[in-house]
Amino acid sequence: MKIDLNADIGEGFGHYKMGDDEALMDIITSANIACGFHAGDPVIMDRTIRLAAARGIDIGAHVGFPDMLGFGRRVIQADPAELARYVVYQLGALEGLARAAGCQVTHMSFHGALGNMAAADDALAEPLIQAIAEFDSKLIISVSTNTAIERAALRHGLRCATAFLADRAYDDEGALVSRKLKGAVIEDKDAVLQRVIELLREGSIRSINGKTLPMPVKQILVHGDTPGAVALARSIREAIEDAGGSVEPVARLVQAGPGHA
Amino acid sequence: MKIDLNADIGEGFGHYKMGDDEALMDIITSANIACGFHAGDPVIMDRTIRLAAARGIDIGAHVGFPDMLGFGRRVIQADPAELARYVVYQLGALEGLARAAGCQVTHMSFHGALGNMAAADDALAEPLIQAIAEFDSKLIISVSTNTAIERAALRHGLRCATAFLADRAYDDEGALVSRKLKGAVIEDKDAVLQRVIELLREGSIRSINGKTLPMPVKQILVHGDTPGAVALARSIREAIEDAGGSVEPVARLVQAGPGHA
Amino acid sequence: MKIDLNADIGEGFGHYKMGDDEALMDIITSANIACGFHAGDPVIMDRTIRLAAARGIDIGAHVGFPDMLGFGRRVIQADPAELARYVVYQLGALEGLARAAGCQVTHMSFHGALGNMAAADDALAEPLIQAIAEFDSKLIISVSTNTAIERAALRHGLRCATAFLADRAYDDEGALVSRKLKGAVIEDKDAVLQRVIELLREGSIRSINGKTLPMPVKQILVHGDTPGAVALARSIREAIEDAGGSVEPVARLVQAGPGHA
Amino acid sequence: MKIDLNADIGEGFGHYKMGDDEALMDIITSANIACGFHAGDPVIMDRTIRLAAARGIDIGAHVGFPDMLGFGRRVIQADPAELARYVVYQLGALEGLARAAGCQVTHMSFHGALGNMAAADDALAEPLIQAIAEFDSKLIISVSTNTAIERAALRHGLRCATAFLADRAYDDEGALVSRKLKGAVIEDKDAVLQRVIELLREGSIRSINGKTLPMPVKQILVHGDTPGAVALARSIREAIEDAGGSVEPVARLVQAGPGHA
Repeated sequence: MKIDLNADIGEGFGHYKMGDDEALMDIITSANIACGFHAGDPVIMDRTIRLAAARGIDIGAHVGFPDMLGFGRRVIQADPAELARYVVYQLGALEGLARAAGCQVTHMSFHGALGNMAAADDALAEPLIQAIAEFDSKLIISVSTNTAIERAALRHGLRCATAFLADRAYDDEGALVSRKLKGAVIEDKDAVLQRVIELLREGSIRSINGKTLPMPVKQILVHGDTPGAVALARSIREAIEDAGGSVEPVARLVQAGPGHA
Repeated sequence: MKIDLNADIGEGFGHYKMGDDEALMDIITSANIACGFHAGDPVIMDRTIRLAAARGIDIGAHVGFPDMLGFGRRVIQADPAELARYVVYQLGALEGLARAAGCQVTHMSFHGALGNMAAADDALAEPLIQAIAEFDSKLIISVSTNTAIERAALRHGLRCATAFLADRAYDDEGALVSRKLKGAVIEDKDAVLQRVIELLREGSIRSINGKTLPMPVKQILVHGDTPGAVALARSIREAIEDAGGSVEPVARLVQAGPGHA
Repeated sequence: MKIDLNADIGEGFGHYKMGDDEALMDIITSANIACGFHAGDPVIMDRTIRLAAARGIDIGAHVGFPDMLGFGRRVIQADPAELARYVVYQLGALEGLARAAGCQVTHMSFHGALGNMAAADDALAEPLIQAIAEFDSKLIISVSTNTAIERAALRHGLRCATAFLADRAYDDEGALVSRKLKGAVIEDKDAVLQRVIELLREGSIRSINGKTLPMPVKQILVHGDTPGAVALARSIREAIEDAGGSVEPVARLVQAGPGHA
Repeated sequence: MKIDLNADIGEGFGHYKMGDDEALMDIITSANIACGFHAGDPVIMDRTIRLAAARGIDIGAHVGFPDMLGFGRRVIQADPAELARYVVYQLGALEGLARAAGCQVTHMSFHGALGNMAAADDALAEPLIQAIAEFDSKLIISVSTNTAIERAALRHGLRCATAFLADRAYDDEGALVSRKLKGAVIEDKDAVLQRVIELLREGSIRSINGKTLPMPVKQILVHGDTPGAVALARSIREAIEDAGGSVEPVARLVQAGPGHA
């Protein structure tokens, strides 16, 4: 019953702030750090890396579209081969800053529209994941179950960490229910906590239709940029610990060779 | 009588082109590739890396101010510690793309206004070079003689490759004569070639006042973005070879430990 | 037999050049000037405005997505109401520079992916055109026949100038044949010229299936950024003049009230 | 005893927020709206314009360097003629959005490093102000006393509104004491309020050396982006009203022809 508490942080830009990173970093065990395309800049990346390292938090890259104005949440129909270069550029930039700070990058995840598109499109996921494998075959890919990203990562022998979004409903195939559909977001805090406990105890969750879904989850993704988000993250951590579980950085949970740990 | 022929390339951006990189890459032995701040983008960086590698050209990072609109030629009064992060971000991005392409980055140089400022200011050169040393202590720093960049690089135990600008006049201390002064740029092609030959034969050049300046040069910097530039670069290479010299990528010339080879 | 020769110009950015604007401006009678989002910058816009004005060329705004890296040719799925603000921002910026130079903006057209999307989608064209009408109800909208842009412009009482793309095939409904289909681009120069002459003489063109399409064209759009483009533009102008026609800036041809002249 | 309460607003960008614009807009009578170069974007500009108009607040342009990452606070050594085009581009963009919203732009002020540089350098202030005069000779220029901006505006026949920075010390010539010097910023809230009252009653302030300085002030600049700023702004407004004064939008106070009202 060990699990990684993961969050997207370092999403400020220049003089702009986003979320309460410091509070969140006292709760989480791994961080996805924005890399300067949809959010973040070299100074914020460096500061976030050092804050994370000082707390023993695993450092990951959060890569997105080059769209600061849209925060990486807008679909951009770019060539997959070009997007693969954008991804490696961002991974390299973060890795460079981490190395200069004496730290390692352990994992990566896709942000926003790029993540949604790659999750749903094998023809996009394939070149992105191939480029990541060429960049660093030891990088852990944070994935949702049953996505093109997961399939491509497994094909390329990359290790995956399945992330659970505790406040989101899943369909019977283990895919996230679209935000456009009713019931996609679980807003009741107790229901969210209950899902986390059930997942830890049973290794499964219930789909939106009540079906039991085994879910080999390594990460629970918490949010930091909405009101009440830090408090909910803290409650999730307490629920895990009250249930006899413990939180651990993702790289300690995903130590085996290729594929899911 | 071996020397590296070096040029700044990969300076396009998106659909925009700058210089005739392909022609220049048939002449040079090392390349300084723009890293997406003053010029370049991930796709152009990747393509340039692969073209250089296919020709056996050493790959270097050309780092500058985040000022695409000003091509990195405008002074920006930013905090030196922040600029150090900008530099590492760019180095990491290029290194990431190179690694994914199966290549290594051997060297780096500063572009435009950032280079001019760092060359003249120990308080700026120090944090930039310290960050570079933390990023990769094996990186060769392309320097002009008698600059704050060279001093900082030597202090931090980084290897330097002194670059000679064949079409620029030097003062009696070995520093470049400011472009604002008369005689700073040598426009006569034969005079430029003569300087190269003299440097190779004697290991020294004449200052603007006629003084003999010993110059332990490893690189001759040629240009590619002005009319006639590629032809001049080719003439310089021919002059070197006619004089019994040979051109070699910079990393083969700078093999010893810290300091100048 | 009067027609406007129109082209997209001012597409450089900072130190980057695109096309031979000066040569093209000796041929055309109206210009669509990039407004700093997909191409162009304030300095280039100002210079292009003044060059156009000195030649008696009508000045128009060429508005696109905020995507310099993709030259405005990539679909960005942004909120239509937000895109309407992007359009007005660009129109205002060009209008401001024109006013400071003592000139007027007569027309506008949509560039690249934004233009393609708005042409095909009434729900996007409507808010864009409404915002343009609120900005300046006297602006002439450059349109292709049978598009959502034309319909919205007519609904809002804006004057339209139908543009003919001489090197592109049209379907039986007067819509452009997609570039993805065979025969969409007419590459034979004489065939292009023949289409221009037929259009001027008959007021109609042949569709890709040979159907006669009446086309109330006010503008012929020529290109400047491909090899041979300037020469083709010159040939088109000569063909018009040889056929007894004349070229005139668009605003002189579209003088009546709302709707098509 | 009428005065304009003025503030810089609309300084968010995309998903990023800066300051509590809505609270501040219940207090102020004129707004300087960021124009998308150092802060702001077309959507935020439009929203801010409409919020201001709904409250009867005068709308002004706040123009700065193209440096979102540095929030326009970093010196960029750009060509003054080019900067003049940047300024007009921003003015035009805001004016376009205002016009589409049925509003007028009444004034402008310079932001951050651009403002500091232009205030201190006649050779920079002259082309900027000339371009503004060419753009709109009716625009009111918000100025500090004894600056190159004020001199240039008066030379070009533009109307000026002298702004008083209530929390900043002035020297005996009426220029702001540099932030680098001790005593430059007045942090005691009561002292700030006292200065406002004295200014309204006497038409003069005390310099840092105690000298009485007549100051024909039309605007008091308040801040919104620091903790306690909105409360201080409210106190200033209350102090004005308690002293029998009233707040009025700047354009009502600067109605006469060229020069200071």
